[in-house]
Amino acid sequence: MKHRDGILFVVSAPSGAGKTTLCKGITDSLENLTHSISYTTRKPRPGETDGRDYYFVTADRFRDMVQAGDFAEYAEVHANLYGTSKRVLDDMIREGIDVILDIDTQGARQIKSHFATAVFVFIMPPSMAILEERLRNRKSDREDEIRKRMRRAVDEIRDYGLYDYIVVNRDFERALSELRSIVVAERCRTKLLRNNWIEDLLR
Amino acid sequence: MKHRDGILFVVSAPSGAGKTTLCKGITDSLENLTHSISYTTRKPRPGETDGRDYYFVTADRFRDMVQAGDFAEYAEVHANLYGTSKRVLDDMIREGIDVILDIDTQGARQIKSHFATAVFVFIMPPSMAILEERLRNRKSDREDEIRKRMRRAVDEIRDYGLYDYIVVNRDFERALSELRSIVVAERCRTKLLRNNWIEDLLR
Repeated sequence: MKHRDGILFVVSAPSGAGKTTLCKGITDSLENLTHSISYTTRKPRPGETDGRDYYFVTADRFRDMVQAGDFAEYAEVHANLYGTSKRVLDDMIREGIDVILDIDTQGARQIKSHFATAVFVFIMPPSMAILEERLRNRKSDREDEIRKRMRRAVDEIRDYGLYDYIVVNRDFERALSELRSIVVAERCRTKLLRNNWIEDLLR
Repeated sequence: MKHRDGILFVVSAPSGAGKTTLCKGITDSLENLTHSISYTTRKPRPGETDGRDYYFVTADRFRDMVQAGDFAEYAEVHANLYGTSKRVLDDMIREGIDVILDIDTQGARQIKSHFATAVFVFIMPPSMAILEERLRNRKSDREDEIRKRMRRAVDEIRDYGLYDYIVVNRDFERALSELRSIVVAERCRTKLLRNNWIEDLLR
């Protein structure tokens, strides 16, 4: 028997802050915590599997789902659509599974209106200079792309007030330990206890 | 320069739940977290030092402090008075030191009215049978004393609604890790950030 509902963790960060690696780090090391699988109109990249990495759908199918109100949040990123199904989240939460949702601040705002009890975490670079350095070290982005990502980072960081927690990714191991601690601590919240737990304990 | 105010952690538990060992475990393993030193009218035990374990005072001095409103909380336990000085807490918090305050539910209720931002943690035994077994294994208490402590435990557990977090001490290492996680997570709270931190970051 599951003893509580799952917790929804929403994690956002500017591109280059290390969100993807950190999220993978905690789903790998904590039990009963899983990454939510998004719907996307983007084409699968080599090695990506439908139903594991994403649910790959056509733009028409995606638009139908938007019309039907199927998404808890969706956004267009670099001309592709990405969305999180309400049903997928509801099912996992009802089964008592904790879910980590790795989305931008725009999506986080939409989630906030649907899932009032979700926990919001923002991963912050230690400084804008270090963020820029990390983006340059990727060597995959052109100069105008880096400038665009830096401008977007500033906009996203200005939305920090949406978030319950801020994890500064100065040192990876430390940031991972802080993110893990947030999950572990939220699992200890008094408000998660079943109504009748105290009767069971004192019986 | 300190970058934020200290956080006040209030930890309560029924006698025998393992609170003292857990609190020592986290102050030993986390930096910038210190145990608050209480005033008491109890006589020092062998090995106890004034100003390190307690501030030992006479009953007259204690009563003067109560009259002067010096205590954030105080309580009588087994015919001795114990109290936490408001000034001691305020000073540590202002210096940016996180403080752990190990008090009963009666004291926790008083703290709640003075320190609205304090974080409240309750350490729970896994079951009443295990709590009783732990109290018996101490072999220091008489039967009537054990019965009294068990009745008091039930009263204290019924106050769990005061607390933000519940840590069940089934396995010591796990409980310690949960308590540490609560401290680490609370240190990541967005609301602790200075007002001007974002200007500094984006400068």
